[in-house]
Amino acid sequence: TDNHSNFQTNMLSIPDLIKKKRDGMKLSDEEIKTFIQAVTDKTIQECQTGAMLMAIWQKGMVAKETVTLTKEMMTSGEVMSWPDEWAGLVVDKHSTGGVGDKVSLVLAPALAACDCKVPMISGRGLAHTGGTLDKLESIPGFNIHQPIGQVQEILASVGCCIVGQTEMLVPADRVLYALRDATSTVDSLPLITGSIISKKGAESLSALVLDVKFGRAALYKDLNSAKELAQSLVEVGNGLGIRTAAVLSSMDTTIGRCVGNSVEVIESLETLKGNGPDDLMDFMICGELLRMTGLVSELPEGKKRISDAVVSGAALSKFQAMMEAQGVARETAQQLCSTHTNYYSILRKSKHQMELKTQDSGVVMDVDGLCLAQILHKLGAGRSQAGAPINHSVGAELLVSLGQRVNKGNRSMTVTSEIPPINRLQNCLILGSDANTQTCQQSLVKEIITH
Amino acid sequence: TDNHSNFQTNMLSIPDLIKKKRDGMKLSDEEIKTFIQAVTDKTIQECQTGAMLMAIWQKGMVAKETVTLTKEMMTSGEVMSWPDEWAGLVVDKHSTGGVGDKVSLVLAPALAACDCKVPMISGRGLAHTGGTLDKLESIPGFNIHQPIGQVQEILASVGCCIVGQTEMLVPADRVLYALRDATSTVDSLPLITGSIISKKGAESLSALVLDVKFGRAALYKDLNSAKELAQSLVEVGNGLGIRTAAVLSSMDTTIGRCVGNSVEVIESLETLKGNGPDDLMDFMICGELLRMTGLVSELPEGKKRISDAVVSGAALSKFQAMMEAQGVARETAQQLCSTHTNYYSILRKSKHQMELKTQDSGVVMDVDGLCLAQILHKLGAGRSQAGAPINHSVGAELLVSLGQRVNKGNRSMTVTSEIPPINRLQNCLILGSDANTQTCQQSLVKEIITH
Repeated sequence: TDNHSNFQTNMLSIPDLIKKKRDGMKLSDEEIKTFIQAVTDKTIQECQTGAMLMAIWQKGMVAKETVTLTKEMMTSGEVMSWPDEWAGLVVDKHSTGGVGDKVSLVLAPALAACDCKVPMISGRGLAHTGGTLDKLESIPGFNIHQPIGQVQEILASVGCCIVGQTEMLVPADRVLYALRDATSTVDSLPLITGSIISKKGAESLSALVLDVKFGRAALYKDLNSAKELAQSLVEVGNGLGIRTAAVLSSMDTTIGRCVGNSVEVIESLETLKGNGPDDLMDFMICGELLRMTGLVSELPEGKKRISDAVVSGAALSKFQAMMEAQGVARETAQQLCSTHTNYYSILRKSKHQMELKTQDSGVVMDVDGLCLAQILHKLGAGRSQAGAPINHSVGAELLVSLGQRVNKGNRSMTVTSEIPPINRLQNCLILGSDANTQTCQQSLVKEIITH
Repeated sequence: TDNHSNFQTNMLSIPDLIKKKRDGMKLSDEEIKTFIQAVTDKTIQECQTGAMLMAIWQKGMVAKETVTLTKEMMTSGEVMSWPDEWAGLVVDKHSTGGVGDKVSLVLAPALAACDCKVPMISGRGLAHTGGTLDKLESIPGFNIHQPIGQVQEILASVGCCIVGQTEMLVPADRVLYALRDATSTVDSLPLITGSIISKKGAESLSALVLDVKFGRAALYKDLNSAKELAQSLVEVGNGLGIRTAAVLSSMDTTIGRCVGNSVEVIESLETLKGNGPDDLMDFMICGELLRMTGLVSELPEGKKRISDAVVSGAALSKFQAMMEAQGVARETAQQLCSTHTNYYSILRKSKHQMELKTQDSGVVMDVDGLCLAQILHKLGAGRSQAGAPINHSVGAELLVSLGQRVNKGNRSMTVTSEIPPINRLQNCLILGSDANTQTCQQSLVKEIITH
């Protein structure tokens, strides 16, 4: 209206901003700032945020807009700062969420053992995907709530910590994230990018590796969509001044053999003790971070240093120190990290333990990670609503692997839960003839995308 | 999620409905019902309504969806019912909003004089457009709040009334209308159609004429967009079982010579006394309603009966009776309707009266209705926010008409307001040479669209 142009020169109102994006136009830096500030201050009406999110979902954003969106989200709250002597060494890895994804639990201490500083801010599980924080909380005493000052102290003494997002960090994302879920605007490239990178930006990282999943148990089902996301993340991360790379990895089956919370902690500890499954060790490709920081000059050297840190036990020591620094009793941490430990003297065990047996003979052609995760979710391992409690002791361990020949009646899986496990669990394992065995065993990591 | 399909068979959740429309799919009757019920019950989150409105704006709706949307909105509240003997006679006319649009004030009593029943539910002005209710409220004592029982009594005794929407009528529209404004989703064909026709449907009409405006002072600037809206309104109106037609009329200048609230009441009364301007009388094309009810068999006869009702004074008597029935003192109503009355002995007059004079000689090539309305809006004749008060006495009367030759210094306009009028008012009149005079004078009504 005429009114409007008189009272707000240059500055568009919220309905005007929505209209501009609705019509497929680019928003200026100033306009994106206005939107994010209104979201942070809660001066915008929720219906307007919903409409803007849908307009962004429909019309997208160019890279420049996404960089600004991310920057404004990042600075909507506290941004961490580190001692000068850590310059170039502060790194993190983030995954878009999968089944049995315990990479962070192994990688964070391994990176610390390679002299990096890893202020890893992680999330909780929702729907069928697991959350690193939930896994760690299955360890008695582990406290994921650490104020920023404490994070810096742990990084100084240990080198890594894995903590939750504080109230002060990226408040705009907290609001948008909740509304995106309610408004079916989760799968939008600029919105996902903004959400992920703003939180990593607030960690004031030097380098970042993103593990972008694709496949039936991932947000993006196909490689191309995942690649598009990876490229957006890499572009915007670098746009914010963080050296950023992305790993594209398959999320059809599971990572490793264990799915659940305590069982994944156990598998991670076993990996740190040198007994890790190959597919989990594949993720040591995140040694790319060492190349990006300049600690090594080539990727193969980075991968080797990470693997060495795991195999040598250096990463295990870091994990033990991190547990202690984050509230786990010294004795408990020591016991979990000793060679022949009984994990269940410390971690809670569910009431029911059940062994599934194969119902036929043949070759394991497929392990349906989504099916497995959804059944465990129903058994209490996951949550359907943010904030709901979960049962850390519910989980499953696969006793067979892809491509393995089995006979009818072989042990295929152990399941632990408070209620008797569901029969459908059998359906997660698909047996076939030997013919295609070779297609079954491949590295989960398909590609690495750098700037 | 898997969870979902188990607990809500067939019934989609609100985020699922949003997702479906977001992706450009058609919503089923049941799904639209779910959405509108959630809006009415306020069980939907406002961010979700915002996202759904934007998804509908982006992806549209097919006619079947729009009919269902409209029907569900209509039945979200009370639906009027009439005595059997009125069957076929209950009619209404609705305009999409313009400048100086006082057609309803003349047409409602004229239709009543032709034996129709006119339960006209009207609106208030917003931004530069005027509202019939605001105009009527400049008459001391006129009460636009009439409960449904009272509406029926007035229709029985007088034949017409002009009232506001009650709380019980189409509550879903009240919610959506407010949110559409905030979310920049006003100009969506299915949403406009739903909003207009649901309210008319709740009046349980037999026949309806819609006056769809196009031009610089209308919602739709071009004829084609207006035509699309008109076709949607006609289709959905008929889909709800109301015989519906639409008139496409130009809204570049003004209708009649007066713009404001009391001044438009005065012009309407003058029209009802036989002194109406030609362009206002053109709208007697709404005599189409008489054809649709079967009271006449051809449109020309309908137009003539309406014009006769105006010219004969029959419509004036109805207007007088309506005023009395709606709370105006008998003496006041009589005085307003008498032949040589001093209107300002009854209606409030503003502090400042100013006569503008032409600053040049030439022919009146254009009267910019939008410009005029926006300046009067600033002077207090309109409101920028729903619910804000307005000044009924602010207004302008044009003393020249399109195509008229004027000399420098001729009186061109009188303006009445509480604060000295704005100089820019001069800019609303555009003078030129005689060359194109013939293009200036045309009927405002361009086309009539029937089913």
